[in-house]
Amino acid sequence: MDDCIFCKIVKGEIPSSKVYEDNDVFAFLDLRPSSRGHTLVVPKVHTADFLETSDMELIKTIVKVKKIAQGVMDGTGAAGFNLNVNTKPAAGQVIFHLHFHIIPRYEHDGLHLFPQHESETKTRTELAEQISKYIK
Amino acid sequence: MDDCIFCKIVKGEIPSSKVYEDNDVFAFLDLRPSSRGHTLVVPKVHTADFLETSDMELIKTIVKVKKIAQGVMDGTGAAGFNLNVNTKPAAGQVIFHLHFHIIPRYEHDGLHLFPQHESETKTRTELAEQISKYIK
Repeated sequence: MDDCIFCKIVKGEIPSSKVYEDNDVFAFLDLRPSSRGHTLVVPKVHTADFLETSDMELIKTIVKVKKIAQGVMDGTGAAGFNLNVNTKPAAGQVIFHLHFHIIPRYEHDGLHLFPQHESETKTRTELAEQISKYIK
Repeated sequence: MDDCIFCKIVKGEIPSSKVYEDNDVFAFLDLRPSSRGHTLVVPKVHTADFLETSDMELIKTIVKVKKIAQGVMDGTGAAGFNLNVNTKPAAGQVIFHLHFHIIPRYEHDGLHLFPQHESETKTRTELAEQISKYIK
């Protein structure tokens, strides 16, 4: 897409710190990392977000994400990583070209997952029934 | 695996708030949600984490994750979601059976992504070269 910053990075029109490229995906370091080695993996084909991506494009991308994540672990010496896909603005998505965040994690790095809270069985049961109706 | 809590949930030996099940995956509400409708999707076949999952298993799972995520959005009325896979204890993985977190997001829900920091081009260039050597 003409005005998509990630499409421009894929085409080399905007410089990036590339870690991997093949026919299907392009991977580069986040300009504003959450940790050392924070990498973004994008499909070369433009697709706005996770839900709007075709199964075939998702399949090609996820296999490469695994391969790249292993390289990020090996290349950084990280002890783990969070794989995150933020979908829609309410979830923090800023660039509307699908991207997988690989965020390497190190012992005592001070990053915290979202807090979690107790829930009641009755509430969960009702909500699960409601959601299940919408899964086609 | 005999002592895996998610394998027991898949087999129905431990109760759960199921939102979806088919031959490949099982999806249920997190007991300790980060937001209303926080759903976990697990492959039925036991696999310890994202890196240890076969390409074929990953492919089957990610396609179902998309379908389930759409249902979670529709069923909760969420405005977006974070898809998260925590890999290895340093990243907050607690149960060693691959699971995708679908965390619905609502306007002004108070959840925050990891903070991000500026980085220098030289640092990124060197690190990208180092990581790229490890991607087979």
